[in-house]
Amino acid sequence: MSVMFILLSIFMTLPVLLLVTSESPNAMAFAESAAICFGTGLLGILATYRQARDLKPRYMFVLTVSSWFIIALLSSLPFYLSDLGLTLGEAFFEGTSGITTTGATVLTGLDTVDQDLLLWRSVLQWIGGIGIIGMFVAVLPFLRVGGMRLFATESSEWTDKALPRMKTLSRGLLLVYVAFSVLAVTTYWLSGMSLFDAFNHGLTSIATGGFSTSDLSMGKFDSNLILLEATLFMMIGSMPFFLFVREMHGQHGVLFRDQQVRLFVTILLVVPALLTLYRWYVSPVEFDLVNGYVSTLFNVTSVVTTTGYASEDYSAWGPLAFVLFFFLMFIGGCSGSTAGGMKVFRFQLSLIVLREQLMRLLHPRAVFTRNYNGRAVSDEIIASMIAYTFIFLLCLLIITVALAALQLDFITSLSGALTVLTNVGPALGDTIGPAGTFAPLPELAKWILSVGMLMGRLEILSVVIVLSPAFWRS
Amino acid sequence: MSVMFILLSIFMTLPVLLLVTSESPNAMAFAESAAICFGTGLLGILATYRQARDLKPRYMFVLTVSSWFIIALLSSLPFYLSDLGLTLGEAFFEGTSGITTTGATVLTGLDTVDQDLLLWRSVLQWIGGIGIIGMFVAVLPFLRVGGMRLFATESSEWTDKALPRMKTLSRGLLLVYVAFSVLAVTTYWLSGMSLFDAFNHGLTSIATGGFSTSDLSMGKFDSNLILLEATLFMMIGSMPFFLFVREMHGQHGVLFRDQQVRLFVTILLVVPALLTLYRWYVSPVEFDLVNGYVSTLFNVTSVVTTTGYASEDYSAWGPLAFVLFFFLMFIGGCSGSTAGGMKVFRFQLSLIVLREQLMRLLHPRAVFTRNYNGRAVSDEIIASMIAYTFIFLLCLLIITVALAALQLDFITSLSGALTVLTNVGPALGDTIGPAGTFAPLPELAKWILSVGMLMGRLEILSVVIVLSPAFWRS
Ligand SMILES: [K+]
Ligand SMILES: [K+]
Repeated sequence: MSVMFILLSIFMTLPVLLLVTSESPNAMAFAESAAICFGTGLLGILATYRQARDLKPRYMFVLTVSSWFIIALLSSLPFYLSDLGLTLGEAFFEGTSGITTTGATVLTGLDTVDQDLLLWRSVLQWIGGIGIIGMFVAVLPFLRVGGMRLFATESSEWTDKALPRMKTLSRGLLLVYVAFSVLAVTTYWLSGMSLFDAFNHGLTSIATGGFSTSDLSMGKFDSNLILLEATLFMMIGSMPFFLFVREMHGQHGVLFRDQQVRLFVTILLVVPALLTLYRWYVSPVEFDLVNGYVSTLFNVTSVVTTTGYASEDYSAWGPLAFVLFFFLMFIGGCSGSTAGGMKVFRFQLSLIVLREQLMRLLHPRAVFTRNYNGRAVSDEIIASMIAYTFIFLLCLLIITVALAALQLDFITSLSGALTVLTNVGPALGDTIGPAGTFAPLPELAKWILSVGMLMGRLEILSVVIVLSPAFWRS
Repeated sequence: MSVMFILLSIFMTLPVLLLVTSESPNAMAFAESAAICFGTGLLGILATYRQARDLKPRYMFVLTVSSWFIIALLSSLPFYLSDLGLTLGEAFFEGTSGITTTGATVLTGLDTVDQDLLLWRSVLQWIGGIGIIGMFVAVLPFLRVGGMRLFATESSEWTDKALPRMKTLSRGLLLVYVAFSVLAVTTYWLSGMSLFDAFNHGLTSIATGGFSTSDLSMGKFDSNLILLEATLFMMIGSMPFFLFVREMHGQHGVLFRDQQVRLFVTILLVVPALLTLYRWYVSPVEFDLVNGYVSTLFNVTSVVTTTGYASEDYSAWGPLAFVLFFFLMFIGGCSGSTAGGMKVFRFQLSLIVLREQLMRLLHPRAVFTRNYNGRAVSDEIIASMIAYTFIFLLCLLIITVALAALQLDFITSLSGALTVLTNVGPALGDTIGPAGTFAPLPELAKWILSVGMLMGRLEILSVVIVLSPAFWRS
């Protein structure tokens, strides 16, 4: 854990180093932040140096949750110490939004913000993206959180040995992640972005983070080609990365034989096409089918993959689009990816439960077996998936009520709570919709939303369990 | 089933008979409707006269669902044949809204609508109320729908014999229902309502129906006393009626020892009090605490009991109230009452599941037992409760999307879908909120919402199962 802080301090020097040729106005802020970060890491190492490793679930929960919270806090230092003049709440919001790959922002006038800070935002999301993939493989299945046990063996079944297997897998994941990132950066660059824009958007596409270098987000480039490329990279970022590694190791076809990937791709093939046709059908004025389809595809993909880019203000596309974007925010990408949301596999498991129950009503004495991706699904996995769903909805309720108590309107409160829990980024409505920012919200709302992002990123249950009285008893 | 149609035809003569002293402008419409209804019943009896009774679940499902749909259709005849000039969709909406005790209306200018039609609306809700109580005791537990099996024995455990037991219970339920209705009518009358208003509101309070004789709903009487009385009667209508019967049979205290009743009452004690304090705290102008509390208590109770009266436009009470009313619509009353919604016990079961899962994460090998009201809760009950929840949310999604596709805005679509599935009545927002009516909606939306009301009243699963392909296979 402490090693992570030291790694973070090294990453903090990146924005300054990358801009070595030009000026880095916040070099001092980054240096200070890196020092604090390094110090925290060193202290942590010294404090825990001789302590026995206790891998009981209880310890793992505390470690996982507290390290994400501390990293979020450290990540926000450069924003706080910079010349942006942010409050502590705003800096924490921006840092958390980065490391959790949420992509909601309190900054306006992005086009004029210092380049080193913009770089830091993108780098943060990129670290957060690989962080969540790592956590999915190394931590979540063993914590049995939210049905994640379903992937306990699957994500690593391509070889038999235990610890070396984990090492090979980790190296594979990192390699794939870096390779796709390089590909994204290069592609964007060749398609007309400046190197700076290409680098930032490349990192935040694969991380499904959604931070941009412009208030117009991807609308800045006004290019259907770039929108289509971004669609592809966001989709890649939302797919189970361990399947890429297995493909790389010669198991060809595993990716598109995966039930989760198939439904995910189907959603992105069907929904944007239907929505485009509907928009064309009801449009009072001339509606360009090609541009309309590309934009619909891009923005729907952006929401389903929980990236949060926008190419235009899609919340102004009429009631049906508005409602669809609201419900699409729940879905999220595939598990084992950088995407947030409830994840496609949970909806599939829910449908399995539902069908089973309908059959049971008709045939009370029949015996049913559940299968997902060709393996049996235990009652335990179903139960923890259901607990996840209930706690997700409960947190959505609590955060919505809290925001409304701060006088935020219904749509802002509800979609704001939803967008942080799913790590999408932009919400709906006039204030925090795709055309707005989170800057006008009260300071307390920013803290609440930041905690919501971390909860969403940690599959919620992990955080709730650490906060539960039963956890600390005995 | 056919007997029910004949009963309905007799009830149809009621509005005319009750108004025998004054004029009944739609006497002809009621006579025609009663004749059609009687004829349908007679035809039904002849058609099924010699058929063997088949009490397999499959047959029970079809019987239950189809009889509610046919009754809804027959109930709407007087509206269609009257001088109101309603379309078929509007008449069906009003009739369905009556028989399902939803209380959403397409009529404006209620204060000038003919008294016989107003009476018919109230009588419909009153029939619907006892109908749902009867269904809860006689049908739902055996269909194992949505966790209702939890009450299979409980609702009738106060004596041991089978068929006579059912008869005594039915008679007890009817007696209690009539007694409370008489009490409500008398109380309202003594508190200053006209006999006509007292009769209508008495019936629709106990039935948690919510139809009123005025566009101002309960605001018409401008009396805190009447609001408090109505609060009490709505609460009575939302409690498990079989517990009243058991109290009547000498088992004193069962009502308030019931876990479901306790949480239900707690919600109504806590939420309105807190909301009143909040409203007082944020109010920019003088806020009268007494009037404010009574109004908050009344309107919150109206929504939680799924009655749907209003004393003022509570959707204009600010964001927190708006959000709370939205979430309160989900809850609903207790099972075994006339109320709709998801029912309090389902939230309690969800919390039990959630706590169990949290404990399981900490103690993977421990064994847990679930208890509700002092009895063990089987996995089967949990599973069917969960299936109910998923299908409820799925229907909410589908109806919301359908309404949005008809160009209704986000809040209207979402809260409209919610209010019919929970049988509350009024939704939120400018159009169909507590101050509006459903009249301006497109004809197709009215049909969709009517079907939604019936689905809500039939615990959704019953309808979905009859519509599922698996049901008709083999
Ligand atoms: K995001
Ligand atoms: K109602």
